[in-house]
Amino acid sequence: MTFDLKDRRIYGFATEEHLRFADQDVNGHVNNGAFLQLMENARVSYLRGFVRSGLPRFRMVIGRIETDFRRQMFYPGRATACARLLEVHERKCVIGQALFDGEGNCTATQRVIMVSLDEQTHRSTPFEPAVRDVLERFAASPDGMIA
Amino acid sequence: MTFDLKDRRIYGFATEEHLRFADQDVNGHVNNGAFLQLMENARVSYLRGFVRSGLPRFRMVIGRIETDFRRQMFYPGRATACARLLEVHERKCVIGQALFDGEGNCTATQRVIMVSLDEQTHRSTPFEPAVRDVLERFAASPDGMIA
Amino acid sequence: MTFDLKDRRIYGFATEEHLRFADQDVNGHVNNGAFLQLMENARVSYLRGFVRSGLPRFRMVIGRIETDFRRQMFYPGRATACARLLEVHERKCVIGQALFDGEGNCTATQRVIMVSLDEQTHRSTPFEPAVRDVLERFAASPDGMIA
Amino acid sequence: MTFDLKDRRIYGFATEEHLRFADQDVNGHVNNGAFLQLMENARVSYLRGFVRSGLPRFRMVIGRIETDFRRQMFYPGRATACARLLEVHERKCVIGQALFDGEGNCTATQRVIMVSLDEQTHRSTPFEPAVRDVLERFAASPDGMIA
Repeated sequence: MTFDLKDRRIYGFATEEHLRFADQDVNGHVNNGAFLQLMENARVSYLRGFVRSGLPRFRMVIGRIETDFRRQMFYPGRATACARLLEVHERKCVIGQALFDGEGNCTATQRVIMVSLDEQTHRSTPFEPAVRDVLERFAASPDGMIA
Repeated sequence: MTFDLKDRRIYGFATEEHLRFADQDVNGHVNNGAFLQLMENARVSYLRGFVRSGLPRFRMVIGRIETDFRRQMFYPGRATACARLLEVHERKCVIGQALFDGEGNCTATQRVIMVSLDEQTHRSTPFEPAVRDVLERFAASPDGMIA
Repeated sequence: MTFDLKDRRIYGFATEEHLRFADQDVNGHVNNGAFLQLMENARVSYLRGFVRSGLPRFRMVIGRIETDFRRQMFYPGRATACARLLEVHERKCVIGQALFDGEGNCTATQRVIMVSLDEQTHRSTPFEPAVRDVLERFAASPDGMIA
Repeated sequence: MTFDLKDRRIYGFATEEHLRFADQDVNGHVNNGAFLQLMENARVSYLRGFVRSGLPRFRMVIGRIETDFRRQMFYPGRATACARLLEVHERKCVIGQALFDGEGNCTATQRVIMVSLDEQTHRSTPFEPAVRDVLERFAASPDGMIA
């Protein structure tokens, strides 16, 4: 299944945020670091609150982030940050994300590659089958959530 | 008039915020820099939205910040940041602030001394009478707001 | 010409930084947002100090950032952030970047796509020939610098 | 003994930092949050590297920060952040700090009240005598260091 990351409807999970004065940079708009901070926040909340719940503990690290900046954001204002599982592979998964401004315009999209990590060796390791099954159900769901 | 900065009722103005994953530091709680960022945001919004509106342009810089940290905050959670004028002097005014967690506990209070600045000379200058009158009405009001 | 972004020798320009306590996150290592902040700093300095100098004013915005996180960094410590022009196209250019820790290990690499912008229309526009010529000389140079 | 916090000579410990592009705010100068981040960094390094070394473990939390902003700082540039023990009391100590720009001008000074904490009860507790002795030697020293 392929998802259009700009489409608000593919995300069952979102965090609603107010932009902060400190999110601005010297160019007078919200800094791209704040875009990433807002999407990080949604991703962490999605993974902690839904994906990991009920699963045996597993550890992932961020391997790669690809961010497309589509539109400026300005303070003051609101932002909605979204996250969902997109793909699951043997040793990694991909989270899809989008950021929307207060008028609902998509201001950024992002793919985050997260690598399954063995905490002892600190090397990549395949997901356990029970974990992978659940991740795949999240990734296959129309809105990234499972009942 | 003296105000108890911990008292939520003295603040007619507040911003409601979600704590962000990035607000935490390595000690596992919200960093004190984030406390200041949240209060900065409320202060800027209060000054822009209410105090300055309808007044001739004037410029202030921060001369001093005194922050009392009263209680830890933890992610995830909400925070309410408050701001109000407390005192007006010839060349400076004092903003009172408080931060509350999602349960309504006061987690910090703050006094911010702002100095009236001449933009040409970049030196302190007395507030213009029309500005000072309005600032004093805000400072004298029970909740820091005027109708 | 293709460059290995992990190779310190392809970067004639670098900024030397100390990691800050605040760069850490709750996981006890330097947050990936700090990786991006350090590379942003090197990129801005490279573009301002070398690439733009002597050129007619032109404006670019960040269209896309692709970051590969290769290794954790820990506080306290130093970091070296590098930047160089990699590619020049009609309406955009690509900056290559790397981050190294105090022992010289590459901790991240990054490609930043910057789009040439018309300040009036706020739409993409081709680089002027004089600008493009210079950008291409930087991109073709072994270390991203020109004499 | 009283110390003039603006006097560079009272600080035997300092961290040298480069200002970062991200330290700026929308007003075009270094944000006051960055001033605090730079002084936090010096304070943590001073406490970890010198004061705590060789002492039994003890825990402190920040009770209050008083910052005087004396001068703007601008990117790009360097900054020197200093820290030293100023006073030791039964259950708290005071750290004095200063920030200097690249030309040696004092841009901010700060007093940080740190409270001795019992980790079990999370309440204030007197410093153990062995700890207090050492803290007092640092506070009495001309440059905040002991041989």
